[in-house]
Amino acid sequence: MSCQKKLGFTSDYMEGAHPKILERLMETNMNKTAGYGLDIYSESARDKIRSACKAPEADVFFISGGTQTNALMIDSILRPYQGVISADTGHIGGHEAGAIEFGGHKVLTLPHKDGKLTAEAIARCIRTYEEDANHDHMVMPGMVYLSQPTECGTLYSLEELKAISTICRDKKLPLYLDGARLAYALACPENDVTLPDLAKLCDAFYIGGTKCGALLGEAVVIPQHDLVPHLFTMIKQHGALLAKGRVCGIQFETLFTDGLYDEIGKRAIETAKRIRKALADKGYTFAIPNPTNQIFVLLTQEKADALSEKVEMGFWEKTEDGKVIMRIATSFATTDEDVDALIEIL
Amino acid sequence: MSCQKKLGFTSDYMEGAHPKILERLMETNMNKTAGYGLDIYSESARDKIRSACKAPEADVFFISGGTQTNALMIDSILRPYQGVISADTGHIGGHEAGAIEFGGHKVLTLPHKDGKLTAEAIARCIRTYEEDANHDHMVMPGMVYLSQPTECGTLYSLEELKAISTICRDKKLPLYLDGARLAYALACPENDVTLPDLAKLCDAFYIGGTKCGALLGEAVVIPQHDLVPHLFTMIKQHGALLAKGRVCGIQFETLFTDGLYDEIGKRAIETAKRIRKALADKGYTFAIPNPTNQIFVLLTQEKADALSEKVEMGFWEKTEDGKVIMRIATSFATTDEDVDALIEIL
Amino acid sequence: MSCQKKLGFTSDYMEGAHPKILERLMETNMNKTAGYGLDIYSESARDKIRSACKAPEADVFFISGGTQTNALMIDSILRPYQGVISADTGHIGGHEAGAIEFGGHKVLTLPHKDGKLTAEAIARCIRTYEEDANHDHMVMPGMVYLSQPTECGTLYSLEELKAISTICRDKKLPLYLDGARLAYALACPENDVTLPDLAKLCDAFYIGGTKCGALLGEAVVIPQHDLVPHLFTMIKQHGALLAKGRVCGIQFETLFTDGLYDEIGKRAIETAKRIRKALADKGYTFAIPNPTNQIFVLLTQEKADALSEKVEMGFWEKTEDGKVIMRIATSFATTDEDVDALIEIL
Amino acid sequence: MSCQKKLGFTSDYMEGAHPKILERLMETNMNKTAGYGLDIYSESARDKIRSACKAPEADVFFISGGTQTNALMIDSILRPYQGVISADTGHIGGHEAGAIEFGGHKVLTLPHKDGKLTAEAIARCIRTYEEDANHDHMVMPGMVYLSQPTECGTLYSLEELKAISTICRDKKLPLYLDGARLAYALACPENDVTLPDLAKLCDAFYIGGTKCGALLGEAVVIPQHDLVPHLFTMIKQHGALLAKGRVCGIQFETLFTDGLYDEIGKRAIETAKRIRKALADKGYTFAIPNPTNQIFVLLTQEKADALSEKVEMGFWEKTEDGKVIMRIATSFATTDEDVDALIEIL
Repeated sequence: MSCQKKLGFTSDYMEGAHPKILERLMETNMNKTAGYGLDIYSESARDKIRSACKAPEADVFFISGGTQTNALMIDSILRPYQGVISADTGHIGGHEAGAIEFGGHKVLTLPHKDGKLTAEAIARCIRTYEEDANHDHMVMPGMVYLSQPTECGTLYSLEELKAISTICRDKKLPLYLDGARLAYALACPENDVTLPDLAKLCDAFYIGGTKCGALLGEAVVIPQHDLVPHLFTMIKQHGALLAKGRVCGIQFETLFTDGLYDEIGKRAIETAKRIRKALADKGYTFAIPNPTNQIFVLLTQEKADALSEKVEMGFWEKTEDGKVIMRIATSFATTDEDVDALIEIL
Repeated sequence: MSCQKKLGFTSDYMEGAHPKILERLMETNMNKTAGYGLDIYSESARDKIRSACKAPEADVFFISGGTQTNALMIDSILRPYQGVISADTGHIGGHEAGAIEFGGHKVLTLPHKDGKLTAEAIARCIRTYEEDANHDHMVMPGMVYLSQPTECGTLYSLEELKAISTICRDKKLPLYLDGARLAYALACPENDVTLPDLAKLCDAFYIGGTKCGALLGEAVVIPQHDLVPHLFTMIKQHGALLAKGRVCGIQFETLFTDGLYDEIGKRAIETAKRIRKALADKGYTFAIPNPTNQIFVLLTQEKADALSEKVEMGFWEKTEDGKVIMRIATSFATTDEDVDALIEIL
Repeated sequence: MSCQKKLGFTSDYMEGAHPKILERLMETNMNKTAGYGLDIYSESARDKIRSACKAPEADVFFISGGTQTNALMIDSILRPYQGVISADTGHIGGHEAGAIEFGGHKVLTLPHKDGKLTAEAIARCIRTYEEDANHDHMVMPGMVYLSQPTECGTLYSLEELKAISTICRDKKLPLYLDGARLAYALACPENDVTLPDLAKLCDAFYIGGTKCGALLGEAVVIPQHDLVPHLFTMIKQHGALLAKGRVCGIQFETLFTDGLYDEIGKRAIETAKRIRKALADKGYTFAIPNPTNQIFVLLTQEKADALSEKVEMGFWEKTEDGKVIMRIATSFATTDEDVDALIEIL
Repeated sequence: MSCQKKLGFTSDYMEGAHPKILERLMETNMNKTAGYGLDIYSESARDKIRSACKAPEADVFFISGGTQTNALMIDSILRPYQGVISADTGHIGGHEAGAIEFGGHKVLTLPHKDGKLTAEAIARCIRTYEEDANHDHMVMPGMVYLSQPTECGTLYSLEELKAISTICRDKKLPLYLDGARLAYALACPENDVTLPDLAKLCDAFYIGGTKCGALLGEAVVIPQHDLVPHLFTMIKQHGALLAKGRVCGIQFETLFTDGLYDEIGKRAIETAKRIRKALADKGYTFAIPNPTNQIFVLLTQEKADALSEKVEMGFWEKTEDGKVIMRIATSFATTDEDVDALIEIL
């Protein structure tokens, strides 16, 4: 094989959209609709999502990206004196350039366990706050932020999520889940948390589009109607309201038609599984073992440099002992040929 | 013609995108690129825009929508103790749900003249501030916001813009121009302000995509490199950074190839001209005379109701004497057939 | 009289505090108390204020200044998508350096009538918002801000205030009243609005200390207990919580003992009345007629300059025809001798 | 002695002000001055502070409290995309109810060492940021926050402070120091950092009044004139501008006359020293050894309960093994008799 171009496994947002999405954008292109998400495609997409979540009363909104969605939901749920509990590895804490603080809120970080929060740690955090004689001088924990899969690609089990939901409801803390890569959780054989489970256990969550085969867009699901009043206006205020709201509506309608969202997840998981097996067989070590579409492989700098001549991976971080963690990510666009080629190179 | 469906003239964001944009999204769809606007399409689009603006050093960023762009640029240019001068009809004042205040800034409104600010009014505002013995207790004017065309569809002449730019530079107030519908200004025979003029006279402006034939996206142009340092991080902080930045890049690359942006503007202006002439011939009155793609026609309630049975128009506002102002808008998607049908109905 | 020093009538915050306040600070100085307003003096002051307002359930908080109090109460009452209705002459709109916008909220200004809002204008503003088809893109009116006396020194009558309160309650808009100079309203013979009236008609208001004889401090009264939950924490968050909260507590305890607050108001009103009569007798014109402690007199520039050689007045503003409005203010510290001397000079 | 009342050692803000301050407030009470800190007392206080700091060009502002001052200075120094580096024990991180986040900024916490930051840790934090390939998605370190003494009562040595200042200047990060209890640092024999040292090494710092013998008030010192432009307006915007600015000016003028600030510090340090020696002699353990006016003593719950019947101490925190840390604080108001009585009880 005379490989002029490097293989690309850097991330799950390297291509455009799943071809079916582009086709549907083409088909509907000249139809005239209302703006701001009040169009028939967005309405249809909302219905399909409500149905997939078995949440017929849910409010559903489409937002252009993940940081936007997180900041919006946190700002609209919290009162000014409250903060959001997150694992210290949470996306909102480190990689959103202060978007949560821009909205006036503190991220209350707890040490993660495999990228996850535990019900116990959340309970302890709340108890510590409640028992502190000076807690009126402190930011009150006002909601909990999780992601599924986590930043580390790991998954909450249904049992773990139920335990967290229970403590949240007991303490009246809304539970919000960031599903930027939710398709890859849902498609995992190891996963036992369904969309209806999320709708039952969370107060709000989002179904990721951008990193799961759409051009852009995330679908916020709020199972209890009007839990967050005037969210439309807050979306506008955050600059997150698209005039051509149909751009997200059409994409999510397509993703939730004929199982496309599942199919996208499955392709990525199956290819990741093959790569993971090949890596294990060849004796590579996983820095953060996980079953989803992001493989974090631990390499010496020399090995990383050598591999990088043939395949583009995502740089994750340096370890203290001078090794590097590289990310290999799969997506809807990962072909069997690319996987074969990658395995040969490893 | 047995017209089952109403004619649609509500707005310029009722359809998807210009077909050439969708074609280009299709063509490039499976090519792998870097994220966050660092891809080759975005780079090419930036070059084409720099060239069209004759601003080779300009920083160019792509943002998903107009409110987002306005809030971002105002927040990143102003210091906390400053506000932004705007006509009282300015989009940032009334129809952005408080996005500027969300960022901590006051909109300092001045009475408009045909939707426009004048250099004199700006100078007077600054003078009033400077001469007020208590001005240290007041919000300092920190920049000027214009739009071209204005909310009323009117245009600044080159002379007017030069006068405003002169007072701004004299007083060291950055001048920012909102070009959500800039294509329709540029395509107007009445217009004498070019992109290079804007690059010379403004400190920042944006070239509108969403309302000028794109699915979404606006191109911010900052003629002087690094005038606004760390804008990338502020884009992220505002939740305005698209992971698949190429989505905007590909669209703007297409809009600035082979004169597509001009062509889109021209189609809308020519069809608007035909409708405007027909309205005038039939004795209709224009509430806000202007030469661009939005026609504001003054109607009795009965006439408005009668027309609305056959054509969808945008409701603009009620007048004090009980009449209504309706908006008829054209776009890249307005066909000659629709214009013919509309004229027949009027 | 060989007057070496100019007479001082610039404002009502030119001296320290009423001597009784300083005496009480002296008396209590070495007693040890809890911090943060949890001391016995603050508790006693709260009780006296509740009693004066006939509002036994009221929450009472002491804040260091007026802008601080306004920003705090507006931030803690509004939701992020809401703004505060104010007369365009309101202190929050022009002379608080953007403190309300710093908290993320828009001031929705309505044209004033003698410095006042009317129930009709408020109702019209709400109706306009409700009827606007695009109101989801706009800042929602979320509360009403009044001041008594107003920035112009004028007074709301009980009837006017009742009408405003009625529309506010009907529309579920909290009514907040800024009483920076409340002592001077309460002491006016023309006034028919008592503290218990305010407690009945407003959702929150503050009793001004700084401009009514205290060193500093304003007393926020929220008649309905816990209407604004966690206000203590928001006070801290706004940097408005004094470690030695007793400093305000002791002052307000003194002001509300043996009728001192009334006495302070009366002295200022009586001296203002004498000055006003002398001005009228001598043919001066009042720019903003009002019955409280601020006299706004219209002068030619020459007359203003001549007077200013002998008496310090507050510069208010220039009129369009080149005259000036000067403020003569009285306070607890205005002596009969100073008034005599001033009248002689006029 | 039949001791009806408990001894009070809870904090250094349990009394009013040093008697000399009250006397001076009395003396000057009826003198008329300009408002907002433009009075002769404030001007004199500024001069005395400039002189004590050997910083003749310094800008000096008086603010009502510590949280207010910290939030103000951080908001006015940082750009929106920047955060402030602080020890994880820093007051701004845990006990200011989110005041820094309210202003839109993230607190970037580093692990403390005896309550202190080290130059190495700061350098590492900046390097980590600079080397992270994704740092444009992260909050940029924009300034450094220290306190002297620290929250734990410990002191930075001149050498430590110089090292921190050097890395800050090298990296162009303004260095800001919170001196809420600065008098107690300055009065410590163990301390080798003077006011002129602070003026040389910091870009801004404040000299604490509230916890060092004033009724309220902190003096911000910015050695380089106009380093923070328009701070006056930001003070107003933060609600931190006192109309009777003289209240702070008179207090600081008094504190910096005839060595009163030193005298206040010395009394507290000497009494703390006696108590510390007595505790050590009797075998008590110090949870956080430090030489300043706060003694953190480690007690069993039983011992703490027993002592608390006779003396009021500040509760600091519970340890993991069930003990408690109690704070014994001294101040200007601590008498030898109280110290004798306390020692007898221990």
